[in-house]
Amino acid sequence: SKSFKVAVLPGDGIGPEVMAEALQVLDAVEKKYAVRFERTFANVGGAGIDEEGKALPQTTVDICKGSDAILFGSVGGPKWESLPPDEQPERGALLPLRKIFGLYANLRPAIIFPALTGASSLKEEVIAGGFNVLVVRELTGGIYFSQPKGIEGQGRDRVGIDTMRYTVPEIERITHVAFQAARKRDKRVTSIDKANVLSSSILWREIVEGVAKEYPDVKLSHMYVDNAAMQLVRWPKQFDVILCENMFGDILSDEAAMLTGSLGMLPSASLAQGSFGMYEPSGGSAPDIAGQGIANPIAQILSASMMLRYSFAMVEAADAIDGAVEAVLNQGLRTGDIFQDRPGERRVNTKEMGEAIVAAL
Amino acid sequence: SKSFKVAVLPGDGIGPEVMAEALQVLDAVEKKYAVRFERTFANVGGAGIDEEGKALPQTTVDICKGSDAILFGSVGGPKWESLPPDEQPERGALLPLRKIFGLYANLRPAIIFPALTGASSLKEEVIAGGFNVLVVRELTGGIYFSQPKGIEGQGRDRVGIDTMRYTVPEIERITHVAFQAARKRDKRVTSIDKANVLSSSILWREIVEGVAKEYPDVKLSHMYVDNAAMQLVRWPKQFDVILCENMFGDILSDEAAMLTGSLGMLPSASLAQGSFGMYEPSGGSAPDIAGQGIANPIAQILSASMMLRYSFAMVEAADAIDGAVEAVLNQGLRTGDIFQDRPGERRVNTKEMGEAIVAAL
Ligand SMILES: CC(C)[C@H](C(=O)O)[C@@H](O)C(=O)O
Ligand SMILES: CC(C)[C@H](C(=O)O)[C@@H](O)C(=O)O
Repeated sequence: SKSFKVAVLPGDGIGPEVMAEALQVLDAVEKKYAVRFERTFANVGGAGIDEEGKALPQTTVDICKGSDAILFGSVGGPKWESLPPDEQPERGALLPLRKIFGLYANLRPAIIFPALTGASSLKEEVIAGGFNVLVVRELTGGIYFSQPKGIEGQGRDRVGIDTMRYTVPEIERITHVAFQAARKRDKRVTSIDKANVLSSSILWREIVEGVAKEYPDVKLSHMYVDNAAMQLVRWPKQFDVILCENMFGDILSDEAAMLTGSLGMLPSASLAQGSFGMYEPSGGSAPDIAGQGIANPIAQILSASMMLRYSFAMVEAADAIDGAVEAVLNQGLRTGDIFQDRPGERRVNTKEMGEAIVAAL
Repeated sequence: SKSFKVAVLPGDGIGPEVMAEALQVLDAVEKKYAVRFERTFANVGGAGIDEEGKALPQTTVDICKGSDAILFGSVGGPKWESLPPDEQPERGALLPLRKIFGLYANLRPAIIFPALTGASSLKEEVIAGGFNVLVVRELTGGIYFSQPKGIEGQGRDRVGIDTMRYTVPEIERITHVAFQAARKRDKRVTSIDKANVLSSSILWREIVEGVAKEYPDVKLSHMYVDNAAMQLVRWPKQFDVILCENMFGDILSDEAAMLTGSLGMLPSASLAQGSFGMYEPSGGSAPDIAGQGIANPIAQILSASMMLRYSFAMVEAADAIDGAVEAVLNQGLRTGDIFQDRPGERRVNTKEMGEAIVAAL
């Protein structure tokens, strides 16, 4: 039987609670399919700071290096908010993880499940029947990581500097990810840039067009980032795959996620060349409801499903998990964040939701 | 009687049609208040390209230099879309105008008029009673204008580079604009940055906090740009003044504008040190409906009102125009873009809307 090593990084806030349910789902997958998931737990984020003095302790990096994939919970909370930006749980854990493991391709689905259209702040007529957008975000380049970056000079003569820099291979590889993904979906890629202002965007657009020629079955269009921010609000269904550089992807993926109205439902994958990847919910650590056992575990469970799909090539098991989640939603089960008190809905807690998904599996 | 010189740049698409109505409103203001507006027309955008070979001809620059303010229509259209980015009507006219005239402060109100909540793609419960956000965007610095910028190298070794750079005085002066504006409104400023990733944002946040001390009556908070893109969708009413650097302001002001659902209603001002400014609708040139006499002239008329308020210190006249617009909306007059066929609504064309506003004045 196959065996995979998983680094389990529950993190802070609701992270440990929802992770527990995702691990139950992995248990169920082990029983159903001939597979073993060897799990090693490690500290990250605030837990890393509290236990080992750093948001990303070296022991955690080593555990991740010895694994086939990282299953990540969520990090951050008021306790660590006054630390310098570099040391804070989110930035201090996520940016180094992305860089160390070369996680250049961030996949962020923004899906409204038809059963949950009511949760969106968009009008029913705008989202009737749901929508399904996949943001493919470049994650290890651009203004996040390029040099020069820093504050130069003294006192009132200081200048803050960041650099948005893209090379041809960086643009090519993320474009391939977007087009490959589109092939399995509705075969449309909207590439986002600001080519009327940015030189990096002019190169971006040219390289994207070059790569697109290898995918004649996929339709490519270009959109300026400011227009994309508008079009997402106006008519999200016009999009299939949205391809973005790092910063634009940060902004638009969060906008798209919020448009679904159910952040607690959305997983994400950050992929390296090869099969290694890190998988985490799109939402945050929700410190306000942490420890109460009421958080929605679905984003974490769907993150585990993405791990099976992208890192372990277990497409059948991933489909089964996704199907189990949908079945449970159709049965009317709702954690508090998605509960709307409509006929047929039943309010459940984290454990009950997790158990129902395991049962549906 | 006072006299002001106005450079009138109607531009392309619906620009000339809506400008005609704004000029009628200025005629009415001349009659009612002891003032004269000396108008000089000039080509800009596609009209500049067609007539004088450039989106911003030198004659136009000279006319603007000889004026107290610029009243700008809108530019762009399919005819000029295949030109290189630098030469296109929008970029080729707007960026040089901002730079030449030092228009560092861009004010973009995103207002839902209570009469028009139905036009938004947001749910009634999210926007009941309307909302009123003012985006204050830095307009002459940051990644739009800083060096180095360009594509270096050859072939597959090319690198696209842009620089986001902010100095202390640049941050200070736009922060003052935001706080001054907040004083006349709900006294709250949300400063947008990405201080967990960008060095320019770390400096931005520090300088904004310093300036804020001079305005103890105004409440300052900070928000990351990705979170702001979410919060605008989730609950736009939480914002009063949103203070942004150039690129974030481009994205968020467009998102906020679209949330209102009536782009044809939204004016903007781009202000220099002193009283000089440029005033233009937030929407585009809408080539699809150009020449039909059905465009909404309100954004252009409200842009003229902002000109009176900010460049000519004619607060009373500006209030009168704003009041006339509101009155006409309350009477039920609607151009096609805001017509919803509800009881009490009457569909009108560009001229009728302009005339009704003049009459209400
Ligand atoms: C925490 C922060 C550095 C991070 C980012 O900007 O990438 C987060 O917003 C995200 O999108 O994962
Ligand atoms: C046309 C373009 C250069 C411009 C900008 O990005 O500033 C436009 O989008 C705007 O917001 O006025």
